[in-house]
Amino acid sequence: MTASPVSESTDAIARRASRFFDFFNEYGEIIRKAGPGKADLVAGNPQEPAIAGYAEAIRNNSESSDPTWFAYTMSAPKAQAAAAAAINDLIGSDYGPDDIVMTNAAMAGLAVTLRAVCDPGDEVLIVSPPHFLYEPIIMGTGARAVRVPMRPDDFDLDVPAIAGAITGRTRAIIVNSPHNPTGRIYPPSTLRAMADALSEASERNDRTIYLLSDEAYNRIVFDGNRFESPTQFYAPSFLVYTYGKTLLTPGQRIGYVAVRPDAPNHDEVIRSITVAQLVNGWAWPNALLQHAAAELERLSIDVGHLQERRDRVVEALRSSGYEVHVPEAAFYLLPRSPIPDDEKFVRLLAEREVFTMPGALLEAPGYFRISLTASDAMIDRALPVFDSIIGEVGAS
Amino acid sequence: MTASPVSESTDAIARRASRFFDFFNEYGEIIRKAGPGKADLVAGNPQEPAIAGYAEAIRNNSESSDPTWFAYTMSAPKAQAAAAAAINDLIGSDYGPDDIVMTNAAMAGLAVTLRAVCDPGDEVLIVSPPHFLYEPIIMGTGARAVRVPMRPDDFDLDVPAIAGAITGRTRAIIVNSPHNPTGRIYPPSTLRAMADALSEASERNDRTIYLLSDEAYNRIVFDGNRFESPTQFYAPSFLVYTYGKTLLTPGQRIGYVAVRPDAPNHDEVIRSITVAQLVNGWAWPNALLQHAAAELERLSIDVGHLQERRDRVVEALRSSGYEVHVPEAAFYLLPRSPIPDDEKFVRLLAEREVFTMPGALLEAPGYFRISLTASDAMIDRALPVFDSIIGEVGAS
Repeated sequence: MTASPVSESTDAIARRASRFFDFFNEYGEIIRKAGPGKADLVAGNPQEPAIAGYAEAIRNNSESSDPTWFAYTMSAPKAQAAAAAAINDLIGSDYGPDDIVMTNAAMAGLAVTLRAVCDPGDEVLIVSPPHFLYEPIIMGTGARAVRVPMRPDDFDLDVPAIAGAITGRTRAIIVNSPHNPTGRIYPPSTLRAMADALSEASERNDRTIYLLSDEAYNRIVFDGNRFESPTQFYAPSFLVYTYGKTLLTPGQRIGYVAVRPDAPNHDEVIRSITVAQLVNGWAWPNALLQHAAAELERLSIDVGHLQERRDRVVEALRSSGYEVHVPEAAFYLLPRSPIPDDEKFVRLLAEREVFTMPGALLEAPGYFRISLTASDAMIDRALPVFDSIIGEVGAS
Repeated sequence: MTASPVSESTDAIARRASRFFDFFNEYGEIIRKAGPGKADLVAGNPQEPAIAGYAEAIRNNSESSDPTWFAYTMSAPKAQAAAAAAINDLIGSDYGPDDIVMTNAAMAGLAVTLRAVCDPGDEVLIVSPPHFLYEPIIMGTGARAVRVPMRPDDFDLDVPAIAGAITGRTRAIIVNSPHNPTGRIYPPSTLRAMADALSEASERNDRTIYLLSDEAYNRIVFDGNRFESPTQFYAPSFLVYTYGKTLLTPGQRIGYVAVRPDAPNHDEVIRSITVAQLVNGWAWPNALLQHAAAELERLSIDVGHLQERRDRVVEALRSSGYEVHVPEAAFYLLPRSPIPDDEKFVRLLAEREVFTMPGALLEAPGYFRISLTASDAMIDRALPVFDSIIGEVGAS
């Protein structure tokens, strides 16, 4: 114990994630100050007004003669039922309302699930590149994040590396499919192999290794690709979802954790998540959004249009000389930076008011990330900049 | 490390708060199953449709041509400005927008503030009777809750006892004024004495002891009483507020933490709270509620009517033979149980579908709590039950 004015544990988390915080502080300010001609391709954020039907769903649920309408609300049964039905539709599963814990979006879902199962000293595997909040959230439980790199050639999970990273302290693994930023949907063969490795290690350790499946993008899938959930292959699984991507309303916090009906210690785990939700300061979604959940389940951004935008940008980048793969799903393109220093390249783009995210920040050095949630007008402005700048940096 | 299927740390918190969880599980079910003639006086929950203006404020902010309307939202500047102006109106302070951290209501505000300043091994003082979530939230940071009883005669803070409970490990104290369940507004003389004790101990320890002032009820004040905030007397203070009591919409999570402009390490503490909000899984209010904040600031339940209900119930209970004080503020009455076993008495009331909270659960044994947020119709049904039952238990 020292005289530090703030928590040393929290400060240690801040230091660990400082590159990200610094980036958002620095770029947040620059982007706000940029002119109307800017192209903000940084985050999975809306750049156009909300989708049709969203405001209506809010207004439809803005009042009621039911006195409990805005009372303390944990998981609302009708929201649980809507979520369970939607999961079952998507992946052919058999979830019931009682398997669903409503949470204030996916990050809270991950945070309360980890708090429900982790203790200080535990290890949680994450696949690199991970979401920048995975490690802070893991550290918040006193556990430690252990990185396993993806396969660099095809962006798939590296199952032997995952198996090799498991120790007696491994409590969980977070997997994100479809994956941000590669857009990879992990194939069933990989997921089955991973499940086998996790089962074997759980048995060997005499301690369950839980699978947290971050499926924020499981409805943003292109080219008729089939999404299969990692949870379908492994019983001790949590399916973590947010409505914030499908509806492109990330500031409206609603999502859920679905605990597989046949998960070991099913009820005990759900009780522990509930306690974690209380401890984190009442981590349930607002009553209003839970009332609206069934209506929200019927809405989506136009994934077809997003796919057209993907195709347009991929084609333009390639014809300008960029190396870029075609993502199967999610919001992002991950082109190779034309110069090795992707942070420098992103700065050069930013000087022309085209804002992207450097791969170095995402644990994908040598790449940069483009969010396809940009408006078409922003894409119109960005493409000529991408085209001219590659010639300049190539020529220098 | 053991083979326990859930987190042992979280399980330890659950065991600590198990009486409360058990009560809500048991009574939640009983109350739901009770007939339309029930009187639910258990929690500070709405028993009538939301106040006029609330649905309108939601609808007014349900859409916008601004594409960032539902984008990721931390503390929205206009919500911060509305909060700062309202605090300054209420207590004559000088908060600016940058002193305000918007949080998803008061419990999240307390949770992220404690995470921002506490480390494992620290001690946090709480005044007994405390809110049932204080200890779980404190334990969630790895710190330990240390109880200081209120003065039993007048329900005031016991400043010598607070001073005596401070050790070298004391990091913070949580004070709740107006107080749930006593309705006490701590007087300036007490607050000044407490501030002196905290300042002296901070200096002695060479480590700041922070004051977390839970002011959920600071606008629910009766008889023209003047509310003075504990934060007015001590610079290292956090004013924690929720809109959920003033608007009687506890399922709609919006509130804030206001850091005194002249607090030591002001900016460092706010940065640490921000990190804690990320670690707890994005603990900011929904974008929609933040857009509505300025409108919500202008709304309130009818405190005059609540005061009339207080007077009516106090008078009726007293004429039935109950011993009950007149609360200065907040939502609750705290009558003496006519039999020593308040849990038994509450069960007897529940058999007649009048639901209250036993004092034993609230660390106020020998009392029971009545929430005045009940509808007038519920009060109509409850008063004859209170009247008849006291005769019966007195006669037994």
